[in-house]
Amino acid sequence: MDKMLSELFEIAQELLDGSQDTGRLERLTPGELVQRVPLGLGPKGVPMDQVLDRMRQVVRYTPKTSSPRFFNQLFAGCQQAAAAAEMLTGLLNVSMYTYKVAGPMILIENEVLGRMCRVASFPDGFGIAVPGGSMANLVAMVLGRNKALPNMRAEGSDGRRMTFYVSKEGHYSIVKNAGILGTGRDNVRPIDSDDRGRMCVRALQAAISKDIEEGAVPCAVVATMGTTVLGEFDPLREVAEVTRRHNIWLHADGAYGGTMLLHPEGRKKFDGLELADSLTWDAHKAMGIPLMCSMLLTRDPHVIRECMGETADYLFQGDEDLLNPGTRSLQCGRRNDTFKLWAAWLNLGDEGWAERIGKQLHLAAYAADRIRSEPRMSLCQDPVSTNICFRVDGLAADEACTALQEAGEALIGHGTVREEVVFRLVTVNPELLETQLDTLFEAILRLL
Amino acid sequence: MDKMLSELFEIAQELLDGSQDTGRLERLTPGELVQRVPLGLGPKGVPMDQVLDRMRQVVRYTPKTSSPRFFNQLFAGCQQAAAAAEMLTGLLNVSMYTYKVAGPMILIENEVLGRMCRVASFPDGFGIAVPGGSMANLVAMVLGRNKALPNMRAEGSDGRRMTFYVSKEGHYSIVKNAGILGTGRDNVRPIDSDDRGRMCVRALQAAISKDIEEGAVPCAVVATMGTTVLGEFDPLREVAEVTRRHNIWLHADGAYGGTMLLHPEGRKKFDGLELADSLTWDAHKAMGIPLMCSMLLTRDPHVIRECMGETADYLFQGDEDLLNPGTRSLQCGRRNDTFKLWAAWLNLGDEGWAERIGKQLHLAAYAADRIRSEPRMSLCQDPVSTNICFRVDGLAADEACTALQEAGEALIGHGTVREEVVFRLVTVNPELLETQLDTLFEAILRLL
Repeated sequence: MDKMLSELFEIAQELLDGSQDTGRLERLTPGELVQRVPLGLGPKGVPMDQVLDRMRQVVRYTPKTSSPRFFNQLFAGCQQAAAAAEMLTGLLNVSMYTYKVAGPMILIENEVLGRMCRVASFPDGFGIAVPGGSMANLVAMVLGRNKALPNMRAEGSDGRRMTFYVSKEGHYSIVKNAGILGTGRDNVRPIDSDDRGRMCVRALQAAISKDIEEGAVPCAVVATMGTTVLGEFDPLREVAEVTRRHNIWLHADGAYGGTMLLHPEGRKKFDGLELADSLTWDAHKAMGIPLMCSMLLTRDPHVIRECMGETADYLFQGDEDLLNPGTRSLQCGRRNDTFKLWAAWLNLGDEGWAERIGKQLHLAAYAADRIRSEPRMSLCQDPVSTNICFRVDGLAADEACTALQEAGEALIGHGTVREEVVFRLVTVNPELLETQLDTLFEAILRLL
Repeated sequence: MDKMLSELFEIAQELLDGSQDTGRLERLTPGELVQRVPLGLGPKGVPMDQVLDRMRQVVRYTPKTSSPRFFNQLFAGCQQAAAAAEMLTGLLNVSMYTYKVAGPMILIENEVLGRMCRVASFPDGFGIAVPGGSMANLVAMVLGRNKALPNMRAEGSDGRRMTFYVSKEGHYSIVKNAGILGTGRDNVRPIDSDDRGRMCVRALQAAISKDIEEGAVPCAVVATMGTTVLGEFDPLREVAEVTRRHNIWLHADGAYGGTMLLHPEGRKKFDGLELADSLTWDAHKAMGIPLMCSMLLTRDPHVIRECMGETADYLFQGDEDLLNPGTRSLQCGRRNDTFKLWAAWLNLGDEGWAERIGKQLHLAAYAADRIRSEPRMSLCQDPVSTNICFRVDGLAADEACTALQEAGEALIGHGTVREEVVFRLVTVNPELLETQLDTLFEAILRLL
């Protein structure tokens, strides 16, 4: 293993150097790739040094999500303490079901979840780590459904229609999950948004009233805290007034925006969060933690256990329940996704997170100013977080994104705002320099 | 990052040395742990060198799943090419939804899934990587349910009872998932096993007939290929005769036993697999791949897309559908869990896997012989795979496991076989030496 480790660290070094490189992104088509790197598996093995060579080539051609030219998704860059912990996690390879197998990692997970609950104004709250925001939303939907229909878990559906509510700007996982959970994709009500892309509370109230009149059982309202395209926040306190009135589960989907809780300005967007029942918060998006690092937090400390608790005597042996998170997790065997977040939090502290988010917001403001100052570009609206949506006169955003990628200039995505396809720039990498944003805008304008 | 990387390398080196160490396992109670290593997070950050020191301490006290004294769960040890790939995966940090973001890793995943489908006798099959066997089973249950009730995905339940079937020795995730999927935990029929712990097909037929008579809709039968305690295999071909007769989805849960497909003797246990509709296969169990590495494979290449397919124009941009696995995966953002399996497979080839499994089976046979030769120990039954269940006259297995753990002798679990609590030894680590098994048995006998 020793020789393997030293060669591995060389590759890691090259990878880190390459990620910080400001040179153009190299992009190969699938056809070009398989010509340069043989990927096929066969009956015969290959010695370890050749495996490492092959890995080195694959790494070379893999898009660099920490590159200053990567703006494609709601994550970018990498917090260094988290990167170190992530590499050790793979070597340690414990499964997070019991203290017996995972030892200190269980205490670390409890510390991280407890701290996130307090930040989220769930002082007695509880949480579980899940493999992604879609899965966090799925668990929240199970909790809401099972609270609305207490016999559901044991007996299954009684045939009454079960409805969910999310704004048209919300994440597609709500509809997808409804297809999985047996409540039906058609029973997710897409609620109109206001002119900034925030859920329209009057439309929400109308949809709920209509469903109740028709005998349906509203299971949960999902307020989106950081929409995928505009980065907007639903008006949580007003939404909570509606859910409280009808005793419906209120889930805050902060998969993307949850991180803003750690910034004094961002926190204001969450006014009313103490009235929500659950919160999705992905640390692998805006916090620079390697994938996956996603949490579902609940205000009530018992509800996850009530709706998801299991026993299995072949597995959960020794130690008290709190130390055996497998008794209440979505998965059985589970990778350790919290050591890396703990390491980053230890490194930064709450104050370091606030500073880091401040940098992201500053970059967003810089980008918005740059767009305002350029006659051929215009903002769809003033950014409230780290998403900047804009149009360029004479450019189709989707075609322009492809052209930028093909030229190796940048990986950037597009989104649809009020039926117009526009550029969506995301400034979640706090290491980014203003000059690197300038480079991006110049590359875009060169397409004209 | 450079200094971080070299210190990290040192910690990794210590960890690998410690894992191969044959010395006693160090175990701290939660109270002792927090006294030795401060785990709390606070408002102020801590410099990177101190973070690395703290991480070094945490690593020291984390149970070593690659130790020759670790027999606790259905995984142990670590394949070296996989370990290397896993460490790079965290640094690369691509999300496996699109070719645009993940590049060659998508082609690698397709290669791995294709190879596994062919091994599983699904020549035109299809697969997805999922975060664990429980989730693979969940997806299989969704497929079965939605095929039985084609309006389910869009409209939700119509109130008819939906039933699933799994043997009493099957995994608890089937019941748990029924609680999540809205079909009801009570509607999972626990089917009696025969005297070796294999599903009794006559009991299965009777349960299905009764449910159909009563108007229920059977959604899937789960055949367990490698039970958690005895490592037994349900009679797949006979089960398939029943499911074909009634047109019910047949899912083979090979989370643990799937690996045996790569061994000529093990393959025989899967007679009839070509008649199954889906297969769960965890490479993070018996294949020595770091967690998570779990696949759901289907015989029909289209069914996953039919039952799980989604579009999202903010995300799935460019490239053809096959290159954007996010359009059909359970998750949205998704960690790359297949690069490590590809690296191991490249290193070993099919032949290397067979050899590796041969070693595991040899160790199981050695352990069984050792037990047979010791008058105070007896086997519950002859092992068919890598699980050896046995009793020791005068020892309560659960108490003995705790005593072994407290003495640092071994991490080993217990299970219930025909209402008796017995030792469950698992020989999934092929690096284990016969003398290390001797050491375990001597430690057990010293407890007498």
